[in-house]
Amino acid sequence: MKLYHSDHTRSFRALWALEEVGASYELVMMPFPPRATTPSFKDENPMGTVPLFLDGDTRMTESSAICQYLAERHPEAGLAVAPGDARFGDYLNALHYGEATLTFPQAVYLRYSRFEPTERRLPQAAEDYRLFFRSRLRWLDTQLLRGAYVAGDAFTIADISTGYALMLARRIGIDDVLSPAQHDYLERLAQREGCQRALARQVGQ
Amino acid sequence: MKLYHSDHTRSFRALWALEEVGASYELVMMPFPPRATTPSFKDENPMGTVPLFLDGDTRMTESSAICQYLAERHPEAGLAVAPGDARFGDYLNALHYGEATLTFPQAVYLRYSRFEPTERRLPQAAEDYRLFFRSRLRWLDTQLLRGAYVAGDAFTIADISTGYALMLARRIGIDDVLSPAQHDYLERLAQREGCQRALARQVGQ
Repeated sequence: MKLYHSDHTRSFRALWALEEVGASYELVMMPFPPRATTPSFKDENPMGTVPLFLDGDTRMTESSAICQYLAERHPEAGLAVAPGDARFGDYLNALHYGEATLTFPQAVYLRYSRFEPTERRLPQAAEDYRLFFRSRLRWLDTQLLRGAYVAGDAFTIADISTGYALMLARRIGIDDVLSPAQHDYLERLAQREGCQRALARQVGQ
Repeated sequence: MKLYHSDHTRSFRALWALEEVGASYELVMMPFPPRATTPSFKDENPMGTVPLFLDGDTRMTESSAICQYLAERHPEAGLAVAPGDARFGDYLNALHYGEATLTFPQAVYLRYSRFEPTERRLPQAAEDYRLFFRSRLRWLDTQLLRGAYVAGDAFTIADISTGYALMLARRIGIDDVLSPAQHDYLERLAQREGCQRALARQVGQ
């Protein structure tokens, strides 16, 4: 298995999931954004985005999908939820929610508050999507009233999808909108050995 | 099972998936956007968004997650891909890609070109995310070189995730960026009986 990754981007989900399932893999660090810094990368991934994950003939580009793939292909890690389980709906919902609902708005915020050159920044769009992020955190609060993790009392690979979104909020300084329960959840996740190993691997390259 | 749905929004994925698996369900039509038109809806879904899908104690809010849930809980429909299948990575990738990568940018485009009052419109952001959508279609083209559907030669529930994003593009008039292969794919999907039944059910309410 091989992962193309850029520091602290959403491909961190795939890196963390690889560590949680205990897989051996090759890590290729890419300067960000790879589509601008490494034009030849488009031969590997025509969108020019990270993550790009390879496993034999399998090629994946969606960070939360890679998490689920790894959990299902490594059942011995016990990080997937089976279809017959009462938590299955929460599990799938959290896998999608973390990326589509909690991370994309932060990407819009970042783009228009920091990444664009000054003359192209749009403070209104940045603020609109900071508020969007804040309002969408409500689903997570509902879940955390019911258990310590997004799908009950046990950590699953879906916590990587949702947890990364909170880590990103902290990293870019909009985590003041997190509730106390969300801050506690983030701390529980950050203290996991798998997360620590993924952070060390990223720094170590 | 019960689905809260607004016409032609992304909750159409859940409606279509319900028809594809042949489930019986209650459909609750909501004026759009429900968080503005129906404040009491927040008692059901604190984010105020559609879809909201209920199945016993299961409550889901992510349209592509609902698709996967239905396919897994209704294996007799044959619309899921098993973890041991060579297409499994493509299947999961397409489930996430359709929403996180292809639909969210269109939502930003719509917001700043149409939904916001005139004084809050942002033509630059609308155009930025129209181009974002266009560039991210490349993954789909790669898939369609390999088979008629996103995960090979057979329709799966992942085609609902990706296919809805193309339907939305057509509906809002930015489908000029679709390739011929993508237009053909959209036609194949639109002609499915399950899709036709979902459209009729939506109109019939």
